Amino acid sequence: MKLHDLELSGNCYKVRLFAALAGIPLDIAPVDFLGGAHKRPPLIDLNPWGEIPILEDGEVVLRDSQAILVYLALKHAAPGWLPRDPAGMAAVQQWLSTAANEIQNGPCAARLVDKFGYALDKADTLRRAARILPLVDAHLARQRWLVGAQPTIADCAVMPYVALAPEGGIALADYPNLRRWIDDMRALPGFLPMPGI
Amino acid sequence: MKLHDLELSGNCYKVRLFAALAGIPLDIAPVDFLGGAHKRPPLIDLNPWGEIPILEDGEVVLRDSQAILVYLALKHAAPGWLPRDPAGMAAVQQWLSTAANEIQNGPCAARLVDKFGYALDKADTLRRAARILPLVDAHLARQRWLVGAQPTIADCAVMPYVALAPEGGIALADYPNLRRWIDDMRALPGFLPMPGI
Repeated sequence: MKLHDLELSGNCYKVRLFAALAGIPLDIAPVDFLGGAHKRPPLIDLNPWGEIPILEDGEVVLRDSQAILVYLALKHAAPGWLPRDPAGMAAVQQWLSTAANEIQNGPCAARLVDKFGYALDKADTLRRAARILPLVDAHLARQRWLVGAQPTIADCAVMPYVALAPEGGIALADYPNLRRWIDDMRALPGFLPMPGI
Repeated sequence: MKLHDLELSGNCYKVRLFAALAGIPLDIAPVDFLGGAHKRPPLIDLNPWGEIPILEDGEVVLRDSQAILVYLALKHAAPGWLPRDPAGMAAVQQWLSTAANEIQNGPCAARLVDKFGYALDKADTLRRAARILPLVDAHLARQRWLVGAQPTIADCAVMPYVALAPEGGIALADYPNLRRWIDDMRALPGFLPMPGI
């Protein structure tokens, strides 16, 4: 399986992290992101969104980091990473949606402004982060992992841009449960770091 | 199963629509949204996000419309509505993420400004809509439904706020494939309308 990847992308890191934790081998293909390779053929034909990561597994081509986590979990990982029962899978889905929306447009977007100079509304990203991070922190005050009694792809989807929030000027000092959770993730066997985490 | 619901919410409508199409009975509990009932107990205890819809099924409590669709599809619907194979389920997940992010922050948010007076950046919502709608339209030029050869929960998650885009000042005239797809959805047996659709 080939992952079209950028080392500094938290969305790509979600996939690399989960693959490392679950013992799934990936063929990493670095993308010339600054050169805009993701906006041109052949990558734009694989993902018309013009984004990375992109996963290729034979005929299967997937955009969206959450979708790639679902695919890898169902096809290649131990069942605990993505519960198959309706309540468990839906509980994970709640956090995949949170990763795609509130985390992406909050702490992730704040980092895009500060670290990569994206022309986004920084105040809006901070407002969104100030809403979502206390909610996640409060949830993690009640349980060790986001869903159930063990780590799932929900943790892999949400943790990266929470841990990278300081690169967007968002301190985690007021969120003790987020810091504990990030430490617990870092202590997992096979954990893979990235710059900033 | 009880759905805490608001008739004018497209996110609530996603759930009502899918339940109608799949023949799943729901006990609809209207929420006093203008009165802020979703921000107070008991609803805020069911969903700390302070949002609706919320689904209650015995001990199972779910926020996030995409997660509720996953739950209902796995527990109560014919398998075609949510493929169980890794590639099929991941393909659906791509569109659940699109519904949660690009559609929510594009056409949905534009409608929140125009129809309900939300203090959001209207120009930003229009920029996001102008990026995502052509991508969905181009995808639907190549296939009848978002994933595979039959409707899935992906269609139920994405269609509502696309169809409601005109209520946010976004015309669908330039998107013939979106209009064809909305018409195909409306023609499905059991289709349930909502005001504006």
